[in-house]
Amino acid sequence: MYDDVPELLPDLLRGLATTRAIRRYRDEPIPDDDVRDMLFAATRAPSGSNRQTFRFLTLRDGPVAVEAKAMLGEAFRDGWSAKRSTDGYDVGSGTADDTPKSRQARAMNHFVEHFEQTPLVVLAIVRRRHEGIGDGASVYPACQNLLLAARALGYGGVLTMWHAGVEAELRALCGIPDDHHLAATIPIGRPQGRHGPVRRRPMDELVFDDHWGRTARWIEDPAGTAHTAAGPPTRR
Amino acid sequence: MYDDVPELLPDLLRGLATTRAIRRYRDEPIPDDDVRDMLFAATRAPSGSNRQTFRFLTLRDGPVAVEAKAMLGEAFRDGWSAKRSTDGYDVGSGTADDTPKSRQARAMNHFVEHFEQTPLVVLAIVRRRHEGIGDGASVYPACQNLLLAARALGYGGVLTMWHAGVEAELRALCGIPDDHHLAATIPIGRPQGRHGPVRRRPMDELVFDDHWGRTARWIEDPAGTAHTAAGPPTRR
Repeated sequence: MYDDVPELLPDLLRGLATTRAIRRYRDEPIPDDDVRDMLFAATRAPSGSNRQTFRFLTLRDGPVAVEAKAMLGEAFRDGWSAKRSTDGYDVGSGTADDTPKSRQARAMNHFVEHFEQTPLVVLAIVRRRHEGIGDGASVYPACQNLLLAARALGYGGVLTMWHAGVEAELRALCGIPDDHHLAATIPIGRPQGRHGPVRRRPMDELVFDDHWGRTARWIEDPAGTAHTAAGPPTRR
Repeated sequence: MYDDVPELLPDLLRGLATTRAIRRYRDEPIPDDDVRDMLFAATRAPSGSNRQTFRFLTLRDGPVAVEAKAMLGEAFRDGWSAKRSTDGYDVGSGTADDTPKSRQARAMNHFVEHFEQTPLVVLAIVRRRHEGIGDGASVYPACQNLLLAARALGYGGVLTMWHAGVEAELRALCGIPDDHHLAATIPIGRPQGRHGPVRRRPMDELVFDDHWGRTARWIEDPAGTAHTAAGPPTRR
């Protein structure tokens, strides 16, 4: 498979720039072949010393999946409910009709209220070897491959940590061993809405050259790039 | 940019399956435009609540870069030297002429001995917000985007943690703030050798369905997929 591969892949670059977080899914099951191709791509990611300490558990419509999705649905609704208050979605621009914040709030409401209908939920898991964020280097590249493969096949998903509220029960239900982290919960489905260019801060806030805070001469967002609102200034 | 994007991107899938860890580089500088396009792609990755807590510091041929590469070169040589012994590269198949292990050892020797000549070294950095691996979810997807963008443009690199031996000095030299993790050191250049299908364990060791240890009916490596040697059995 892929024995003859071109050196340049412009559509790969295009895919990286147009993979959005997708939280609203059409009510369509995902064929086995597409699930397999997404998971195959996930497992092609790098990991520390190529030890492949990552594992993926797919939740579709099996007996454990139905129970796990119900458990996660509650946790996601609780998580979003808490975030609504702490991040100010219920005041100011969050309550207006058509601001980025109010649109985001509506999408989140829909996401958590329909969580149980998500066609595919993938738990990303990694064996514990390090303290701190180190084990993340052996599982989050694979999560990104999974999301990009979904994009390539006409699906979309989002990397979430909202299993936190039910982690102990979920681990017991799914049989996740104690010496493994549950690193992410990734719902996937065919998008309502579509992928397209993502918004980020201007590159000169995110990329430095030669020393922290120093702007590179070559830094320039491509023409037409839309930005998110400025964040708190980076300390220089 | 990318205003009109196709729904399906088969070459994206192809790119995910053929991005190898590249550790030997041709002695060619990377044009500014290509550096910019790689870093742009990195910053298109997701992060927790789209907070974009990731930062990238490029080391090329500036005054800090030269010193930082020398510092990192020593750390990489020490790191590889320790790994040679602990992982048995100096005994058995590691010393034979043409085994996977001896080829890997030769590539690693070349990598660390030529580290200072690496055209581009990217430090991946992320603001501290969580305990444990959580902050990794906001930087390692971007690292993977960087490596994939390198692949798309005819370059290659590898995600490493071997800055660990000189982290304190390196942070001071580059001015990395205390409240940020140094998450990875990513050397990049034009490959000696080439990209192509990566080797992993059979999918049924890495992907479970509905419950830990349960093999999905749809699991099947694509025809012609080459595997790494079996690892220790996964506990089921």
